[in-house]
Amino acid sequence: MSVGETIGVDLGGTKMLIGVLDAERNVLWESNERSTGQEEAGLVDLLEREISEALRARPDAAAVGLGVPATIDRETGTAIAAVNLPIDDLPIRDLIAERVKLPVFLDNDANMAMLAEHLYGAARGSENALMITVGTGIGGGLVIGGELYRGSRGGGAELGHVVMEVDGDPCQGNCPGHGHAETIASGNALGREGRAAAERAPDSALGRLAAEGAEVDGRAVTAAAIAGDEVAIGVVELVGRRIGLLLSGLANIFEPQVMVVGGGVIAAGELLLAPAREVVWEQTLRPMNETPVVAAELGPDAGMIGAAAMARLELNA
Amino acid sequence: MSVGETIGVDLGGTKMLIGVLDAERNVLWESNERSTGQEEAGLVDLLEREISEALRARPDAAAVGLGVPATIDRETGTAIAAVNLPIDDLPIRDLIAERVKLPVFLDNDANMAMLAEHLYGAARGSENALMITVGTGIGGGLVIGGELYRGSRGGGAELGHVVMEVDGDPCQGNCPGHGHAETIASGNALGREGRAAAERAPDSALGRLAAEGAEVDGRAVTAAAIAGDEVAIGVVELVGRRIGLLLSGLANIFEPQVMVVGGGVIAAGELLLAPAREVVWEQTLRPMNETPVVAAELGPDAGMIGAAAMARLELNA
Repeated sequence: MSVGETIGVDLGGTKMLIGVLDAERNVLWESNERSTGQEEAGLVDLLEREISEALRARPDAAAVGLGVPATIDRETGTAIAAVNLPIDDLPIRDLIAERVKLPVFLDNDANMAMLAEHLYGAARGSENALMITVGTGIGGGLVIGGELYRGSRGGGAELGHVVMEVDGDPCQGNCPGHGHAETIASGNALGREGRAAAERAPDSALGRLAAEGAEVDGRAVTAAAIAGDEVAIGVVELVGRRIGLLLSGLANIFEPQVMVVGGGVIAAGELLLAPAREVVWEQTLRPMNETPVVAAELGPDAGMIGAAAMARLELNA
Repeated sequence: MSVGETIGVDLGGTKMLIGVLDAERNVLWESNERSTGQEEAGLVDLLEREISEALRARPDAAAVGLGVPATIDRETGTAIAAVNLPIDDLPIRDLIAERVKLPVFLDNDANMAMLAEHLYGAARGSENALMITVGTGIGGGLVIGGELYRGSRGGGAELGHVVMEVDGDPCQGNCPGHGHAETIASGNALGREGRAAAERAPDSALGRLAAEGAEVDGRAVTAAAIAGDEVAIGVVELVGRRIGLLLSGLANIFEPQVMVVGGGVIAAGELLLAPAREVVWEQTLRPMNETPVVAAELGPDAGMIGAAAMARLELNA
């Protein structure tokens, strides 16, 4: 018998999205909570509270798929290390399962977005594909031979934590790396470059925003670029080209059939993707330079949709 | 019936190694030729000549495995683009097969080294492993789920053609990339950094070598480091740390069980590997920071051994 409803949780660095989905991927119930400022215990409490609320709304939900922005040990259900959340060897699968009395399946959040795009979105039908989710940081997911590749125990595929600057700045949060793609090509980098551009061009829309004391973050830069501010467009292009350099190297490694870009920054659309694609076309070895670079199709729900689908796949396995 | 003898060819950027191996991996005949300075036609002639000589010595050889330093289309048997050889959409498999009247199987040279290390060497028994071959350039091979991963058509896995310097120098040879690992962490980079160090330290062994008009290349730097010259040891460490930065990112992506370093530079042994390992330990996300970094076990014959084994595997498939 195949499973009816499952719960998908996408625990991000700043917010948590939870939904109950049926087998046809209809979202039957959904909620969105802030996850910032929580310690480990607070995160577990938050998860319990939200999953319980989902269960009150949809009592027939049969399992929980939990996507967390951390390296994972799938056998023990442990979130080992997270860059943007205070998680450290947390046996989160069993902690949550005990509290909500349901089977819980644990995976990486970007792997779940990749799974969703592979099942339903921009990578549908691909044998080999990859996805980067560019938001606060840069997450990564891989499909190899038609299956999600998660590394040997569940730690992969951290496509954003590769060195793009020898002698570069320390990476974000708890990452011990330096000069990582996440440092120079994430949504946070978009904000940082936007603030620098605002200073250089006080008469631009970005400059006026900064002068008014408004926060010039990745979202503000994207909005200004979409509204036509040339300075903001230049900043989006700069970060788009860096994303292209990351994707170019990944294309040389994987020769994938498609590379999907998701996460918050994809709100900029072609302003970001066109320069990335141009770099892939110009700087990648043949024939990988022809790899399509496309926007994610499932939007900000991808991780949650993938987590619910993963729980269904695991239960039916 | 399983195959007896097969011919393995490792066509490198500077030399060609060819051998006839039996099913127990005994090398029954071997030859080594320079491959530099050849155009496409000359390379095909050289291959025909050497394979014919191998067949005169071992007439029972049943197939040829051909490893070339290029992106490959395995279906058509084409070498698409090579960084360090003048190869451009060359249908080399059929060209050679027609001339030597034997089945020919085509693959990437570093993939063949990875296959050999996976079958017989440092990655024996691994489900997930990777190898970089650091010589003139940096080649790469991947094992995923116990099988060689070659990309969608045979173009992967070019692990050395990833961006490690945004705004970096143009990559080597025919590669259209900039700031690639191959540019800053190859044997050629070892020579370049060695020459710079010789200029800064004229009293060092390297400096005296340069003053005598000797060529300070990667091999000379390695030899001076092994002989104890502190300046040369520093250069090997510098490149070793860069190799570590490349491997750290690859560990974050793959969570492999082992990472193998081969190619000419591995002659420096722990002088090179120890700093690489230290970087992986310090800068990689947990648990991938514990990934073993080991020297290739099969030495300069790895590509040839892997090519002969690949031909055997394909014939018996």
